[in-house]
Amino acid sequence: MSSPIPEAFRDLLSRETKAFAALALVTGKGEPQVTPMWFDFDGEVIIFNTARGRLKDRVMKKLPAVALAIQDPANPYRYLQIRGRVVSETEEGAYESICSLREKYRGDRNYPRNPGEVRVIYKVRPESATTMG
Amino acid sequence: MSSPIPEAFRDLLSRETKAFAALALVTGKGEPQVTPMWFDFDGEVIIFNTARGRLKDRVMKKLPAVALAIQDPANPYRYLQIRGRVVSETEEGAYESICSLREKYRGDRNYPRNPGEVRVIYKVRPESATTMG
Repeated sequence: MSSPIPEAFRDLLSRETKAFAALALVTGKGEPQVTPMWFDFDGEVIIFNTARGRLKDRVMKKLPAVALAIQDPANPYRYLQIRGRVVSETEEGAYESICSLREKYRGDRNYPRNPGEVRVIYKVRPESATTMG
Repeated sequence: MSSPIPEAFRDLLSRETKAFAALALVTGKGEPQVTPMWFDFDGEVIIFNTARGRLKDRVMKKLPAVALAIQDPANPYRYLQIRGRVVSETEEGAYESICSLREKYRGDRNYPRNPGEVRVIYKVRPESATTMG
């Protein structure tokens, strides 16, 4: 599949870069919300992980349009803006997935198991991208 | 006036910290958009500067609800999420204002004068804030 992410900015999605994504959603009231998030990229979709019941979960479960901004940690004037759509959500493998994200960002897989917390994987397919820098 | 920004996170709004704000808006189509932005804070309102005619200008001119995420440049796990409302827009003094923002972030006031570009100041009043870290 072709990707809307320009080759020259693919490094911002790599595990080595450890960039955060500012994930923007539209709430049920039609208002924006934005959160700095860990993410991973499998070459096709951007992978997020949240906990069941949070606002992000409640919004993304409807498979809506989302937007991301990903700044280069080494140069804030170089960034990617991505628009995409949530294409799937699953609890299956979601604890392992948050441990993998923790390994990317923190170097170990010891994500705490919080009592009563159910993790969820969300996948976002990029539909368009713009770049700066 | 009381502010919803907790005292312990005010440093993220200071000129010394040079943090960026991820500014999230809802487009006319009801979809989210998010952009890393320079900003300033006068103790009451958050000050942005964009160019007339851009998507951000077209959306914010309607004085809508917006959302911001501001990460500590020294610790990405420490951040502020702010929800607020655009309370004013003006072209008056807007070139001087973008020069002041450039001074905050780059150390000089030499913001280029781009032919045909009209700068606009937008002010956002924070209505609520959540903190992490």
